Amino acid sequence: MSHYQTPLADVEFLLNQVLQAPQRLAALPAFQDTDAALMHQVLDEAGKFVNDHIAPLNQEGDRVGARFKDGRVTLPPGFKSAYQAFWQAGWASLSTAIEDGGQGLPAVLDSVLYEWLSAANHGWTMAPGLLHGAYECIKHHASEALQAQFLSKVGTGEWLATMCLTEPQAGSDLGLARTKATPVAGDTRDGEFWLNGTKIFISGGEHDLSDNIVHLVLARLPEAPPGPKGLSLFLVPKFYADGRRSAVHCDRIEEKMGIHGSPTCVMRFEDAQGWLVGEAGKGLHAMFVMMNAARLHVALQGVGLLDAAWQKADAYARERRQMRAPQAAGVQSGSADFIIEHPAIQRILDTQRAWIDGGRVLAYETGLALDEAKHHPDPARRESAQRWCALITPILKSACTEQGFKGASECLQVLGGHGYVREWGLEQHVRDARIAMIYEGTNEIQAIDLLMRKVLGDGGTALQALLDELSAPLRAAHSEEARVLRLFEQLRGVTQAALAVQGRADGAIRLNWIAGDYLRLAALALLAWAWSRIDAAVAVADAQRWQAPSQALRHWVLPEADMRASMIHAHFETRWLSA
Amino acid sequence: MSHYQTPLADVEFLLNQVLQAPQRLAALPAFQDTDAALMHQVLDEAGKFVNDHIAPLNQEGDRVGARFKDGRVTLPPGFKSAYQAFWQAGWASLSTAIEDGGQGLPAVLDSVLYEWLSAANHGWTMAPGLLHGAYECIKHHASEALQAQFLSKVGTGEWLATMCLTEPQAGSDLGLARTKATPVAGDTRDGEFWLNGTKIFISGGEHDLSDNIVHLVLARLPEAPPGPKGLSLFLVPKFYADGRRSAVHCDRIEEKMGIHGSPTCVMRFEDAQGWLVGEAGKGLHAMFVMMNAARLHVALQGVGLLDAAWQKADAYARERRQMRAPQAAGVQSGSADFIIEHPAIQRILDTQRAWIDGGRVLAYETGLALDEAKHHPDPARRESAQRWCALITPILKSACTEQGFKGASECLQVLGGHGYVREWGLEQHVRDARIAMIYEGTNEIQAIDLLMRKVLGDGGTALQALLDELSAPLRAAHSEEARVLRLFEQLRGVTQAALAVQGRADGAIRLNWIAGDYLRLAALALLAWAWSRIDAAVAVADAQRWQAPSQALRHWVLPEADMRASMIHAHFETRWLSA
Repeated sequence: MSHYQTPLADVEFLLNQVLQAPQRLAALPAFQDTDAALMHQVLDEAGKFVNDHIAPLNQEGDRVGARFKDGRVTLPPGFKSAYQAFWQAGWASLSTAIEDGGQGLPAVLDSVLYEWLSAANHGWTMAPGLLHGAYECIKHHASEALQAQFLSKVGTGEWLATMCLTEPQAGSDLGLARTKATPVAGDTRDGEFWLNGTKIFISGGEHDLSDNIVHLVLARLPEAPPGPKGLSLFLVPKFYADGRRSAVHCDRIEEKMGIHGSPTCVMRFEDAQGWLVGEAGKGLHAMFVMMNAARLHVALQGVGLLDAAWQKADAYARERRQMRAPQAAGVQSGSADFIIEHPAIQRILDTQRAWIDGGRVLAYETGLALDEAKHHPDPARRESAQRWCALITPILKSACTEQGFKGASECLQVLGGHGYVREWGLEQHVRDARIAMIYEGTNEIQAIDLLMRKVLGDGGTALQALLDELSAPLRAAHSEEARVLRLFEQLRGVTQAALAVQGRADGAIRLNWIAGDYLRLAALALLAWAWSRIDAAVAVADAQRWQAPSQALRHWVLPEADMRASMIHAHFETRWLSA
Repeated sequence: MSHYQTPLADVEFLLNQVLQAPQRLAALPAFQDTDAALMHQVLDEAGKFVNDHIAPLNQEGDRVGARFKDGRVTLPPGFKSAYQAFWQAGWASLSTAIEDGGQGLPAVLDSVLYEWLSAANHGWTMAPGLLHGAYECIKHHASEALQAQFLSKVGTGEWLATMCLTEPQAGSDLGLARTKATPVAGDTRDGEFWLNGTKIFISGGEHDLSDNIVHLVLARLPEAPPGPKGLSLFLVPKFYADGRRSAVHCDRIEEKMGIHGSPTCVMRFEDAQGWLVGEAGKGLHAMFVMMNAARLHVALQGVGLLDAAWQKADAYARERRQMRAPQAAGVQSGSADFIIEHPAIQRILDTQRAWIDGGRVLAYETGLALDEAKHHPDPARRESAQRWCALITPILKSACTEQGFKGASECLQVLGGHGYVREWGLEQHVRDARIAMIYEGTNEIQAIDLLMRKVLGDGGTALQALLDELSAPLRAAHSEEARVLRLFEQLRGVTQAALAVQGRADGAIRLNWIAGDYLRLAALALLAWAWSRIDAAVAVADAQRWQAPSQALRHWVLPEADMRASMIHAHFETRWLSA
């Protein structure tokens, strides 16, 4: 098999020609020196690092997997040295602030880097994947004393970090968490606590990649109220400053469908000494500060893994000959044609490209919006960027991870039996991609978050404002743009219907039944919008590269929008068994 | 985790109340003693055997997998003794003719048995899965001398069998096969040949389950023309009658995504002595005689694995509490509800049940049609049954295996992170189910077979006749039946459009682009038909069991039909890049 190759030219076209990223970033005081040349330099180096150091470890990482013995976890061959090279070269700190030892570069570059890393080696990438969230969490919520010890270590990636949230009885519902935090001094004022409890599904809870591991742990203070408001956040390192090992034990690692290179740990806290991060009872608040960025990264895992699967399927389809393809011109050569000539295969490949390229536009736009929401001098632009992030992130997380899995499975189909065996690495992408539909909030929870909170929470106002903003430059006389306008109208229509249903006695349950359809409709409308931007930017010379997926989108992807809209309307109008 | 439990009551309801199987079988002279009591006895015993002997081996079979060492293959713990118990108890020969040592029972009972076996342990079931095809092939095409040696050994399952078709360069396109057969005596008259070549993806090519293995091998005689018409079929056993080991070598087994309990072998034939089966140049014909039955079994793997996944997801959803569900009545109890109360979860479970139950009706009807096509005294009924098999089999194979994989993945989602780890066994079902979309003709090839050969091959006549037959008893005034009639009209409409396109210069390529959509539309129409039969048979007492999936079908599954129909029509009408 061939390894994944970072698609620098495609990504630069989307960033530069479609999204005008260099100009938009240069308008932000924090990034005023950013231009296309600087971005090229960073991405070119990033691509080389990913291709040379990370991609080659992927298949053996899957085969060997993380190993557990006597509480210690060993990662697959090459993982540790690749990680050391990664943080030392500054890739872990690409968007970390300069004063914390980082490069201070835009979040959108971090987005591209994590897409590529995930595509090249999802298992390995789980390790640094939580760093940025932990860094922001410590930066915004930890005391000065904690920051002095941990901020730059985590910000640079010298020490890796975990998020210890899930417990056996508390998965999607963190409010059920029971891990206890008891004040060492008898009261909470000095911020020092003993932690007791068991956390499960902790990615990178134990490993041999870095000298220390910083655990961020949700736990409950004595007398804390039940539910999410009783949760506080604590920091417990694997090693304290004086070299002592903390009482945080890895009891086992999970056997999983995929991401075998990432140890998923059961972590036991047994009178483990730790410190409060942020205010008591505001643990979820402190963790959720980085939710949009984390969910964007998960969406990019979907995009990246789909591209990795596509690269293999495309290469295979261009070298494998089976049977005659129906040729429009009736010309046949040899006894069998390359399978890419067969419409069923071409359709699979073009359709996945439509999702990859459109998903990239939406994801990089979100990366830019994260930068603008933080750094734009105009408060109105910050607000508009923030609105984009709030609305688009759950859509992207759900739609891109679903397509990551299903589309990788389609790419597997291109290889037939050769896709099902390990040799080409296709089946690994399918297994790896499956987790992204679950973690960082299941896709079902994303759908409920979008419809019930982000859209209906303000009576549809933010969504209307977003659609108005996106619609403004679109021309009804232009056939592709008119298609986008129609999809936006469809989305406005179901939103109005949802608002009307919301007030009914059975409103909440009705809306929950169709939240997934609503998200799909929104995703398709945005995908169409993204492709209308691509189409507008494509020069005649590159037409062939972009025309086929654009056509596949219109023919095989967007028709689902009508189906979703009519399912939603029909559901609202029908007598329903459980309502 | 809990093992799969054979769903005897559900299956008996479908066979007895929905399909009137006992009466229909008793009308066939071969099965005149068949009644519901006999069928119950067989299925009850079959269920116990599957539950007690096969299901418990599934998870360890996946973990340990088939092992290769020095040309020998060892199957996972318990596989051999289970197989010996299986054939000795007569399960392998359920539908084998009595004169060949079998039970002589109807094919439809074999269908149920293989659904249950696949659900319980797909990897193990691969071993006997090819027996029946090999038996029929030997019975109908082998010489008397070969039959004397091999027919009852294969018919009873004492010896297992393989189908050696695929070669590295010849997968879906068997016409590219190069394995050579050279007459031992210098000419072909005594039927004895030396075989030379390499076959890949040979399920059960080597193992320790049975005393002998009978290989059926596609190969090319000297001077044979290129392509499929140059292929002949040969029989080569692992051991000859005098105890000699043949020159058939297993060079390695594949590492695969799933079905780890089934060894997928690379087989090297090195001057291996074998015999011609059937006529020279008619190898594909001899192998394809059992194609409908084999494809039906693959469809039932999809149905079975989806039911196995559903059982686990349903059990989990009834014991796992997370968050409050939106209650229509506004009543809340405790701090979290069972997740089956959450609409997103209920929708997944009900939708999969709609596919499982509807898929069963279609598959068992096909099993009955196989019996009727073979045994019905009325030639018109035999012809109608044969028509059903020819048209429905590719639809079932494709639609049920696709849903087997995608639906099992949906069931995995119900368990969240617990679905992604191995403990509950859900992820194994997803991995195992994936292969059924590929083998026995990829789903893309099924779609082309359906549209280009089965439907358009006779100008749509057979399809029209089938739809007329199914429509006849349906009442337009009955809302559910009217829905089925509408779907049939939609199918007739796209068929007419396809016939019109067929004559165009770009006809073949156009039709190839939408063959998959055509198959989906047909599958949905048939699923609706199956459910209209279920709905009509459900007694008031059982309403609750069947009402929710029936409703899920109407709301969340059937709307896809409109989408497929309009995609097809739109494609025919649009200018197309590649056409």
